Amino acid sequence: MKKVCLVIGAGAGIGGNVGKKFAKEGYHAALCRRSDKDGLQRLVSKIEADGGSASGHLLNAVEEDAIEDCVANIESGIGPIEVALYNLGAQIGSRSLEDTPYKTFELGWRMATFGLFRLAAAVCPLMELRGRGTILVTSATASVRGNAGQHSHAAAMGGRRMLCQTLNAEYAPKGVHIAHILVDGAVDAPDTLGKMLGPEAFLKLREARGLENDGLLLPEKMAETYFHIAHQHRSAWTHELDLRSFSDLAWWNHPP
Amino acid sequence: MKKVCLVIGAGAGIGGNVGKKFAKEGYHAALCRRSDKDGLQRLVSKIEADGGSASGHLLNAVEEDAIEDCVANIESGIGPIEVALYNLGAQIGSRSLEDTPYKTFELGWRMATFGLFRLAAAVCPLMELRGRGTILVTSATASVRGNAGQHSHAAAMGGRRMLCQTLNAEYAPKGVHIAHILVDGAVDAPDTLGKMLGPEAFLKLREARGLENDGLLLPEKMAETYFHIAHQHRSAWTHELDLRSFSDLAWWNHPP
Amino acid sequence: MKKVCLVIGAGAGIGGNVGKKFAKEGYHAALCRRSDKDGLQRLVSKIEADGGSASGHLLNAVEEDAIEDCVANIESGIGPIEVALYNLGAQIGSRSLEDTPYKTFELGWRMATFGLFRLAAAVCPLMELRGRGTILVTSATASVRGNAGQHSHAAAMGGRRMLCQTLNAEYAPKGVHIAHILVDGAVDAPDTLGKMLGPEAFLKLREARGLENDGLLLPEKMAETYFHIAHQHRSAWTHELDLRSFSDLAWWNHPP
Amino acid sequence: MKKVCLVIGAGAGIGGNVGKKFAKEGYHAALCRRSDKDGLQRLVSKIEADGGSASGHLLNAVEEDAIEDCVANIESGIGPIEVALYNLGAQIGSRSLEDTPYKTFELGWRMATFGLFRLAAAVCPLMELRGRGTILVTSATASVRGNAGQHSHAAAMGGRRMLCQTLNAEYAPKGVHIAHILVDGAVDAPDTLGKMLGPEAFLKLREARGLENDGLLLPEKMAETYFHIAHQHRSAWTHELDLRSFSDLAWWNHPP
Repeated sequence: MKKVCLVIGAGAGIGGNVGKKFAKEGYHAALCRRSDKDGLQRLVSKIEADGGSASGHLLNAVEEDAIEDCVANIESGIGPIEVALYNLGAQIGSRSLEDTPYKTFELGWRMATFGLFRLAAAVCPLMELRGRGTILVTSATASVRGNAGQHSHAAAMGGRRMLCQTLNAEYAPKGVHIAHILVDGAVDAPDTLGKMLGPEAFLKLREARGLENDGLLLPEKMAETYFHIAHQHRSAWTHELDLRSFSDLAWWNHPP
Repeated sequence: MKKVCLVIGAGAGIGGNVGKKFAKEGYHAALCRRSDKDGLQRLVSKIEADGGSASGHLLNAVEEDAIEDCVANIESGIGPIEVALYNLGAQIGSRSLEDTPYKTFELGWRMATFGLFRLAAAVCPLMELRGRGTILVTSATASVRGNAGQHSHAAAMGGRRMLCQTLNAEYAPKGVHIAHILVDGAVDAPDTLGKMLGPEAFLKLREARGLENDGLLLPEKMAETYFHIAHQHRSAWTHELDLRSFSDLAWWNHPP
Repeated sequence: MKKVCLVIGAGAGIGGNVGKKFAKEGYHAALCRRSDKDGLQRLVSKIEADGGSASGHLLNAVEEDAIEDCVANIESGIGPIEVALYNLGAQIGSRSLEDTPYKTFELGWRMATFGLFRLAAAVCPLMELRGRGTILVTSATASVRGNAGQHSHAAAMGGRRMLCQTLNAEYAPKGVHIAHILVDGAVDAPDTLGKMLGPEAFLKLREARGLENDGLLLPEKMAETYFHIAHQHRSAWTHELDLRSFSDLAWWNHPP
Repeated sequence: MKKVCLVIGAGAGIGGNVGKKFAKEGYHAALCRRSDKDGLQRLVSKIEADGGSASGHLLNAVEEDAIEDCVANIESGIGPIEVALYNLGAQIGSRSLEDTPYKTFELGWRMATFGLFRLAAAVCPLMELRGRGTILVTSATASVRGNAGQHSHAAAMGGRRMLCQTLNAEYAPKGVHIAHILVDGAVDAPDTLGKMLGPEAFLKLREARGLENDGLLLPEKMAETYFHIAHQHRSAWTHELDLRSFSDLAWWNHPP
């Protein structure tokens, strides 16, 4: 059985690139996403063509038992989940309070907070038994400050961050490493940012930021840090870190 | 029509005392709690005996339409809600991840995060029309850090705090004051702390802290600050503050 | 002997208005500032004309023994310092690293951090003996985040905030209340903001913000909260709070 | 000319191990410490014996021109400083306010805050010219919260953190990476922790934490993360991260 890196939320951005990186380093990458079976298969094929091991799993994370069954199937059929990346966002753009239906607010929580709780409930006991394991959590600026129009997103991400601290307090002493990775900036990800903005605006943003100048977060480079964090020696673990492009303002800085 | 101070979560602790204080200062106190009709009626009678105006409302905040109907009924039948206090906690004691069922985790969110969102969705538009209003939110240490055993509570309170910042960003410029009041310590509240600990342990804690030494947060005194915050001039509003007893360690301090 | 409210940094903004408020409520206001003897005397006369008690003290806070002697003289000649407000800022506008000489960086520390340490060293033991007392500290956004051009200011204010937490941890259990008041916005203060901007730009800012709309922090209104904090019951003390105008963005929010 | 990693504060703990790691990866390690010429020479010899390049520099960081001259000499005599580690602490154990002389308080600032400012003033313009460079700053829990007895340390470290944010805001867009590394726990460092505790207590602590269980932060392992941070691609830089042993409580958690 191969050691597995499970990615919940494996598109063409952070999730897919983390999967590639771990596969390159000898893990089986179990890649989960909600839709686009063809895109998922292409990602798996690309990894295999590069000599890696991967599998694709369509999974709607808000469906009952979806995460739980996925974890169980991988553990029994592929190998022990050594690293799990929870990479589902809940960004829905800017919505005023009056334009945020209850269902939207709840969906944000189901995706960004409850889904992570379910993943942790499924994998932490297994990792505890093995005395090791890592849960990497992609998080957002909204986990540390709320902005206008971010009711659903900020509430969900604020919950996510506090959940990570709780998991860390309970499971770190048992050998399970939880890391909250605050991605503070726009990621060069066609699947999420590209879809949210539309192809034209996305292209424009990429040009404005100057891709050759690395003005957007490049997921391939982010994956290097995800991998490093997952392989820190247990005497020196990082629980929280931020990531942003050199040319971007930190969330606490304003344009002059 | 009288100006109303609505209290969601009006027991014998913070909620009841804030109700009393606002009633004493000329507001109608609309007091809501889930159960104990007799206790609620006694609170109303006490306020009326002291010359104040109050009403009691049994309300299960997690029930569909309960908060929304309550707000609508008060606005049409009693008067404009000038101040709303969201005072529902979601503390369920220390529960390991494996002892935290999904239902428990979700209930924490329904009580501590979603309930506030629903209250805000109901009152903010009314306050915006009037160009003024205040939402006071009692919050907990778990809103700023997660501890072992606090999965449900910390995730819910972390969401609550980020939601408060979002509401503030959107509604402060419209004249609606949102305040996140971080209660960092044990409150001398028989309804909540007393019930959680049991009568004996509660008595013991009160004695250990030395009530004459004010070693627990006294809700009657806390109510003074709640009232002050609600009456700050709009040129100098407080969005976040903490409250603890002089003899208690701040959450970021450890015993030596 | 009258109970004294000592104000270090008593100009026409926060300091002077806090002095007035405490004098109105029965304290002797001992008002200290570095220069402008006439302005100081006018402030004292104004308070006395309103029936209050006050005295003016020219004091260069970075001079050896200046703060210490001032405290000793007031304690022996006027009365016990029940409340001390440390209101000296160290804002010098935006200066790049290369335009920040060592002397400037050090002066920021002497004004904003070391001066508070000296005040605390002088009054805390006296307050401890009396079993009560309050130190109010006006602080700035720079105490919680550093921006470009703020090398001196941010380093000094960051030190100030951590010093407040240390003082609180050591002296709160002894009955001494330390409060860190984060002023997150422009204050309508001709002595400081007015001088920094120059009279024309200051007038323009006041107009742009719409004084009738309370778009700047009004020091007279801020003083109400300073007074409230100093009179909280010891079972419910606030250690940290923020203050900003309703129409201003919190430091963690960006313009949309 | 070789690319240089400058270490200010190179003892047997973090500083020395970071030096070794960078030397192993091809940098010249310029190792600075205040005293113990023999120990410093042994460190240099060890690196050279392992095939690396290193030099030792005795330097009292609080002396006028010491840091500035050191930077200038290295740049002219050895090579461009690509990475600078500021690793001087200012922990002096627990001292009550009354047992903290002004000189002690000031020394903390000179070591922990001003020294970093001086280093930055010396190297940032050089790094800006080259369009690249990294300043790694070892920081402490006291940079984010003050505890009783930590007046000097907390004020100095709070200033250090805000200075790092200011430097980051100003220099990141110019290609200079500043990282604030919050070391939240006891480091297995005989030079600092060992000296502070005394040899017996240090040995006892090592045993209690179970070195075989990695209960203290192992500097050799920490150095891996220091190196990784310094080599992140500029599209994905970390500005703040924490490091602690898996078995240690985070600063915001209390023992149950």
